Amino acid sequence: MMEATVAITKSQNKKTKPDPETLQFGKTFTDHMFTMEYTHEKGWIQPEIKPYAPVEIDPAAMVFHYSQSVFEGLKAYKDASGDVVLFRPEENFKRLNRSNKRLSIPPINEQLALDYLKQLLELEKDWIPTAEGTSLYIRPFVIATEPSLQVAPAHHYKFFIILSPVGSYYPEGIHPVSIMVEDHFTRAARGGTGTAKTGGNYSAGYNAQAKASSEGHAQVLWLDGVEKKYVEEVGSMNVFFKIDGEVITPELNDSILQGVTRKSVIELLHHWEIPVTERKITMQEVFDAHKAGKLEEAFGSGTAAVISPIGELTWNEETMIVNGRDTGEVTKALYQTLTRIQTGKQEDPFGWITKVSS
Amino acid sequence: MMEATVAITKSQNKKTKPDPETLQFGKTFTDHMFTMEYTHEKGWIQPEIKPYAPVEIDPAAMVFHYSQSVFEGLKAYKDASGDVVLFRPEENFKRLNRSNKRLSIPPINEQLALDYLKQLLELEKDWIPTAEGTSLYIRPFVIATEPSLQVAPAHHYKFFIILSPVGSYYPEGIHPVSIMVEDHFTRAARGGTGTAKTGGNYSAGYNAQAKASSEGHAQVLWLDGVEKKYVEEVGSMNVFFKIDGEVITPELNDSILQGVTRKSVIELLHHWEIPVTERKITMQEVFDAHKAGKLEEAFGSGTAAVISPIGELTWNEETMIVNGRDTGEVTKALYQTLTRIQTGKQEDPFGWITKVSS
Repeated sequence: MMEATVAITKSQNKKTKPDPETLQFGKTFTDHMFTMEYTHEKGWIQPEIKPYAPVEIDPAAMVFHYSQSVFEGLKAYKDASGDVVLFRPEENFKRLNRSNKRLSIPPINEQLALDYLKQLLELEKDWIPTAEGTSLYIRPFVIATEPSLQVAPAHHYKFFIILSPVGSYYPEGIHPVSIMVEDHFTRAARGGTGTAKTGGNYSAGYNAQAKASSEGHAQVLWLDGVEKKYVEEVGSMNVFFKIDGEVITPELNDSILQGVTRKSVIELLHHWEIPVTERKITMQEVFDAHKAGKLEEAFGSGTAAVISPIGELTWNEETMIVNGRDTGEVTKALYQTLTRIQTGKQEDPFGWITKVSS
Repeated sequence: MMEATVAITKSQNKKTKPDPETLQFGKTFTDHMFTMEYTHEKGWIQPEIKPYAPVEIDPAAMVFHYSQSVFEGLKAYKDASGDVVLFRPEENFKRLNRSNKRLSIPPINEQLALDYLKQLLELEKDWIPTAEGTSLYIRPFVIATEPSLQVAPAHHYKFFIILSPVGSYYPEGIHPVSIMVEDHFTRAARGGTGTAKTGGNYSAGYNAQAKASSEGHAQVLWLDGVEKKYVEEVGSMNVFFKIDGEVITPELNDSILQGVTRKSVIELLHHWEIPVTERKITMQEVFDAHKAGKLEEAFGSGTAAVISPIGELTWNEETMIVNGRDTGEVTKALYQTLTRIQTGKQEDPFGWITKVSS
């Protein structure tokens, strides 16, 4: 494959790498970042790798006013032989372009973007932590930079890739969390932006999250915006229920994010010949299954946690305990298999792993 | 009233003021801006007026990733005696705090903010254009500046006020526009952020606006996100219909913006003893009224256009011509009265005008 030409300016002041034991999520950034500009006349230009630093931006930049922005999230790991590996990165760049389309942002070249990311990782590979559960979190994002208060798509954009070493999501081992079903606030609506990875979907959920936290729950379960009846997502994860031997996850619609981990979970379950169905599922059905003793497992899936078991679900003052608050067998197998494939500790029969030249 | 202390740094390089004849909306900015910082520890600090210039911001600033931001829009005019006047500015700062609350952003002191704005206007008053229909558009806004990828409210924010001289919304005189009813995309949902002035509501509408424009319409009419049945807004304006002598506007809910112009229209109609009702109204009712010859007038209301008459409404392949595509009598009276009060050309019996010391 042709390698994309990038102007590289190396940092003269290397930062001290953080202690992998005390790493938080998304607070520490590496020495370099990738940037690229878009102008209406020239398209995407000036691919650059340069020292990570604040950028100069006009106060009238449209991203500040009308939130025209999209992002992605994926992780890099080091495998047993020290090679840098990525998990299904092409899926992330495909989704970035789907998000771009929904937000009227011009598409990027997905192959080039992946190549830019590889070059950045090549330079920053010493930043990839190797302790159990740690990784280098990758955040590609696009923002509208044109200074204009007109309510219309911008003519200028900036694309960034920034990198952040992140600690284990489960420093004390994987453990089930308590979830509250949100029946007032909506994350995303039919015809809205829910299937796009755009900022507005995330800050819209802060109020509900605060309410859930204040009542002792880890996350919110989002219902559909129309009837407040169908299960959509959990926090910023997709969600799965194992009911009477069958794994069920909400079918994709325009208010559910097409998770890369979600897709991998479904493929893995097929591979294991465990029944898995994508369909609409109401909260009432989950409740009835629990009452009948058939709600066997429940979990969220996403890049940050990979798999997050649900131990408790509160809905309308009723609390359902799932699997005695223990991580279920299928949940555990999914977490172990996915994380082992991601870190190269287990063979990848699916072609999910992309090696960055070592 | 106590005057808020602001550090003022004057610009050494004054810009050339633009020709009022060729002014576009929101493209030119004045010499100075107001900024203020928020830290979790100290609250809102460092109020400053300084030269308008790009700001340095971390690529991980939360506004870029999760769109935690809110804004306002209002206008300054010069009255007949050359004094600078504002139209109901306290309403805008009240609404800014309502938006802050929805987006989990700490509140600002509304009185202080208005005082900061007045000091900025005092310095920039030569930028206020005086030709018919022109004004100085004021854009207060808040963005989350903390560098963090955690999906949670930020601990650091920046508040700005920037100013932009704007031309007449109707350079060739007020004229009715063509509107397309949007039946797929949703602007805002029940339980969503529609009643807040936050960016995500605006970029979410770009796709629908592009579709409407490509079919020759000026704006989109938004239906409710639940049943796609009830009228909500027009473009980024509130909407009114005059049916059989009565003016009807959708009642406020959590997906409709509480427009300052909307409120003023309702108060003015009450003052004139023209029947005005805030209630749910379906698109079918508007259609039936038109068929029965009772849809007399239709218009949007907002800060940018003040009043925007609707000449044509397209819904499900059917086109309704409103008042023979002429501006209706009530629509015209509202436009004239509001703009004359705003510019001090007509007595203000409502206490809507705030004078900035002359």
